[in-house]
Parts: sequence; structure tokens; C-alpha cells
Amino acid sequence: MTTPVIAVDVMGGDFGPSCTVPACLSYLAQNPSLKLILVGQSAVISPLLPPSSHAVHSQLEIVDATEVVAMDDPVAVALRSKPNSSMRLSLELVRDGKANACVSAGNTGALMALARFTLKTIPGIDRPAMMCCLPTQANKGCYLLDLGANVDCSAEQLFQFAVMGSVAAEVLGVAQPKVALLNIGIENIKGNQQVKQATQLLESQNKLNYIGFVEGDGVYRGDADVVVCDGFVGNVLLKSSEGVLRLLASRLDNRFKANWLGRLKGLIMFLPMLRGLRKDFSPERYNGASFLGLQGVVIKSHGSADSTAFQTALHHAYMEVNEDLQARLSQQISLLLEDVLLQPH
Amino acid sequence: MTTPVIAVDVMGGDFGPSCTVPACLSYLAQNPSLKLILVGQSAVISPLLPPSSHAVHSQLEIVDATEVVAMDDPVAVALRSKPNSSMRLSLELVRDGKANACVSAGNTGALMALARFTLKTIPGIDRPAMMCCLPTQANKGCYLLDLGANVDCSAEQLFQFAVMGSVAAEVLGVAQPKVALLNIGIENIKGNQQVKQATQLLESQNKLNYIGFVEGDGVYRGDADVVVCDGFVGNVLLKSSEGVLRLLASRLDNRFKANWLGRLKGLIMFLPMLRGLRKDFSPERYNGASFLGLQGVVIKSHGSADSTAFQTALHHAYMEVNEDLQARLSQQISLLLEDVLLQPH
Repeated sequence: MTTPVIAVDVMGGDFGPSCTVPACLSYLAQNPSLKLILVGQSAVISPLLPPSSHAVHSQLEIVDATEVVAMDDPVAVALRSKPNSSMRLSLELVRDGKANACVSAGNTGALMALARFTLKTIPGIDRPAMMCCLPTQANKGCYLLDLGANVDCSAEQLFQFAVMGSVAAEVLGVAQPKVALLNIGIENIKGNQQVKQATQLLESQNKLNYIGFVEGDGVYRGDADVVVCDGFVGNVLLKSSEGVLRLLASRLDNRFKANWLGRLKGLIMFLPMLRGLRKDFSPERYNGASFLGLQGVVIKSHGSADSTAFQTALHHAYMEVNEDLQARLSQQISLLLEDVLLQPH
Repeated sequence: MTTPVIAVDVMGGDFGPSCTVPACLSYLAQNPSLKLILVGQSAVISPLLPPSSHAVHSQLEIVDATEVVAMDDPVAVALRSKPNSSMRLSLELVRDGKANACVSAGNTGALMALARFTLKTIPGIDRPAMMCCLPTQANKGCYLLDLGANVDCSAEQLFQFAVMGSVAAEVLGVAQPKVALLNIGIENIKGNQQVKQATQLLESQNKLNYIGFVEGDGVYRGDADVVVCDGFVGNVLLKSSEGVLRLLASRLDNRFKANWLGRLKGLIMFLPMLRGLRKDFSPERYNGASFLGLQGVVIKSHGSADSTAFQTALHHAYMEVNEDLQARLSQQISLLLEDVLLQPH
């Protein structure tokens, strides 16, 4: 196998190169059979690199990008006014076969739009979806998609997401993944039109292990391996879950601070335990949403990812490249879509 | 003031009369200036009551209902095939002025449909919404609506929900409540068409303290006092939050059981703390969703509510009656809707 190459938009995210460049160096040190292309303003990147004699230099390349997509740039600006952005050049490296994957912590909407424009979708897929893996009580992950790339979804799109999620989960190690649609009840009468029609489409095929509807709590119970919803709902689910955890942490914090006994309990007993728990949920462990359905691997890191979390995103990309996710997705999606006679536009 | 009367559908919920009747008795014992009408199968209810000499008997009345709406009955069955259901008769008591409020732990969809049919909506309101109060980091509640009564909502309906939520929060003690729309970003370009149009409607008025968009985590941070979304999104937010908390509890449990030191830590140190925390989140404290926008007070208890939680739902009803929420809502809604020249159909 040739050396996998990942193009990294080092300018993205809340902390920019000061976070992403050291993360890249750490990750390279642990993975000597990998190459990274750091895409961004070389004047900013170079001072962050070790002396040129250092071992990792052979695994590194810099591609100079004069422009940066800001976190609040409208999609149109990213698409039309910044032809030399680090984000766009990273994606073009994938398109041109110079990199096997792209990782960015930048503006999600811009990344999705540029990725669609640059890489195009897999035939049969109308729109790409964002997928991440959530922890569950069943001690296995639950892959959730879409996380916000598509605010409104037709039944056909939800069906396509189910296909993509199932294939991706299988490639990532889940045997016969149980696929479900997120709904506000498990009975057939529940939900909006899109969900009701999507369940009919999914019931009419026999290639996916479709188990029906799950509710919000079913996601974390581990009722399914893949849960499908539109991007508005998925985004709210993800962010409100983060919100609940943060609320819980702040309540605990207040309790610890309430008196000396609380502080003592916190220091001796509780903090080590909480640290373990937070790790289960944290972006450090789960960071890195896959953009599924593109002709290329694209991983979105959380904007607020620290160095460890950004390395997790890099690892996601590496894993998807190693597993040849993209080619297997394309192949299996075309088979599945043919099978159910869904002719996408 | 005349004695407030609450009609209770005692047949609803996962546990039925064996839970709801004792809850009613406990609540009456604490609130001697209240009357409850227990609506249900009197043959089931009577054995659960104390001897007729007991003090609470003067505060009690039983209305016999021969039919019960099952938790999985389709709306049509509840509406058309069960004219003598405990749920329907409870609502009719409100309609006929014999009770000031109705509480039920039964089938949500059926309750909403029967409530609309029996009580009708307030003029200017197309559809009622379900609202509950969530805990926040800001140590004040956040009122969230809709929780699942309306899966698809137009911009006008979201606007009406904002009006109802704001008025309700104010009546329930929040001065100039900050009202927000739930979205997947806080920038104006984010969201679906309904949300984008609703924000324009809300920005065009000056009676509500509208602060713009909040994201899922903003709900629990306490960024707003009232957060408005469609029922699909609200339901997913609520249930996935419950799911995260349950996952966390199970992880803690596993950690405690891992070894003797863990068990010891759990017993001595952690369990009392966790008990306190759970109380902050639990239905025992927050149980009871208000159906807003009807010509009458209707409170939906969680189906799985235990006796304490069901009493919280009763208390919600009592509070809304005492505050004359329904009349104040009607009055202020008509003023506000006139103000923005929204002519609802």
C-alpha cells in the first residue's frame, strides 16, 4: 500500500494553527507511516514546526494558502470570494488525488459547500450527510446522521442517509448494523410526513437491517447502531446533549464548592471519577464528524477541539482511508439504490 | 375566591389508578383548599380510597367513566369510539365549568386531540402547544415549547408559540421573559425556512423581549427564559436529554460496581450527592407539561410518573388555576396578535 496522505486545513477552528499544527506533529510522531499536508499560511505554520533535522519533517509538506475562511463567513463568500483558502485547497488536494482525505475544524457550512463543489457527491446521493458516533448504555457506539448539513430532508434523502450510515457502520466494524429512524414515538402513526414515507421506503427493502423508529432516549440506550434524522434535529440532539452534560458538570462544581466537606469529597473522591466519565463523552474521544456521500474522505473537527481532540479527528480520517470507506460506500450504495429501484435525481 | 377544582383522569399513565389515586390523596392532604374530581372506573377507584370518615372525603368526588383511552389508542379511536372515556369526561368537566383544570398521564396525542375538540383553542391560536420547564446553569428554568403536539409548524405557529410561552412565563413569575427560537446556529443565515420567517415576524414586533436564536446547548445554559421550536425537535431534545442522564447514571453505577473501593466511594460519598442532582432534573420536580392555547387549563403528566411526580403535575395545574393563567393568556394573546397585525385563520 502506498503511504496514506491527509490534507489538513490548519487555519480552521477556534484556535487555528497554534492548536492544529502541534496536534499534527504529535499525531505524526505516533504514526510514522502517514503523511500530512499542512495547508495554510506558511508564514504562520513554519515557526510552529520543529528544526528541519527533526524526524517528522519527512512526513510533512506545507501548501501555502493565502486566504482563510472565517468561522462566520457566509457560504457564498467561501465559495466565490476566496479561491485560495486553506479549506478549498485542502479539498482540491483530495480531488486531484494528491491526498486521500481532508480534515478541517473550520466553518461547517462552508466546508460542506466547498466539499460538494470540489469533490461532488457519489452517484445516487443527492446531498452528503454529517455523521458522528455517540456513546450508549449498550457500550457500543451509535452512529447518528445528519448532524446539520441538511436542515430539510425529503424521505428519499433520509433513505439515502440510512444507506450511507449502514454501509459506513459496517465498514467501521459493526456487523449487520441495526438502522433506525429518529422519531417522536415508535408507533407507525407518529412523526412528520418525511419520516412516515422514509419508513415505508426502508421497509420495502431487505438489504439493510432496518428496525423501525427510535426516540431520543433510544439513541443513548443503544437501541440501534445507526440513527437517521434530518440535520436540524440531529444538530439539536447533539448540542442539547452537550448542554445537559455541561449543566451537570456545573452543578457538581457548585456542590463541591459549597463547603469544605464538599471540596474535600471533590478532590479526593469525585474528580478522578468525573474525569473518567467525561472522557467517555468528550470530543477528545468522539471528535470528528464524517461527511458521507462525497467522492472523497472529509472529516470535520469540532471548532473548539483542543490538540487531543483534533488528533482524534485526524485518526478518524486515517481510519476511513485505511478501510477504504469511500470506495466501499460508492460501490455498496449503487448496489443498494438499484435494489430498491430508487432513481435519485 | 371559590374553591379551585381539578378534574383528574386517574386511569391514564403506565401505572393507572394504583399510582394516581394515592397521589391525589396525598396532594389533597397538603392542600385543604382544593377539590379533586377523580374521573375513572369507580369500581377500581373506590377500594383505593380511605374510609368514608376520613377528612379528605369532603374534598373528593368521583365521576364514573366506563371507558379508558389506552396508551396506544390511535387519536381517531379516542375521538370517535370512546365517548365515555375518563380522559374525555375530565375535559368536559372543564368545558362545562365544573372544574378549573384537567390533569392526565394518558396518551399524549389523544389528550391533545380531545382537548382541542372539547375545549377549542383561544381565538388567534391555530394549534395548542405543550410546554415544560427545564433546569439551566443560570439557576432559573427555561420554558420549552412545543414538546411534540405539533410535528410540523409554520412560521406563524412558531410566532404564536413565542407569544404563548412569553405570556405564560410572565404569569409564572419571570419578568420580561427573554424569548428565543431554537436553531442550529445563531447567525441569520442558519436554519430552515420556518425558523427564518419566524425570526422576521418576531423581530417585527416590540411587545415580546425577543433575543434571536439559541442552539441546543443554549437551552441548558439559560440563554433564554422561553425557547420555541416545532414539536418534533422539542420532543427529541427532551427525550435525548433524558437519555444522556440515564446513560450517565448507568456509567456511574458500573463504576461503583467495578470493585470494593468503588462500592465504598459510592455508598459513602457519591450516592447522597447524586440523589440531590437527580432531583434537579427529575420528573418529580419538573413533571407536568402545560397545554397552552386552549380555552381551559390542561396538564399532561409523564406516563411513567410515580406518585411524587404526579403530585407535581397536580401542583402545576393548581398553580395555573391560582394565577388565572388561561384568562390572562387569552387576553394578552389577543392584544399581541392585534399588535403585529397577524390575522390567523
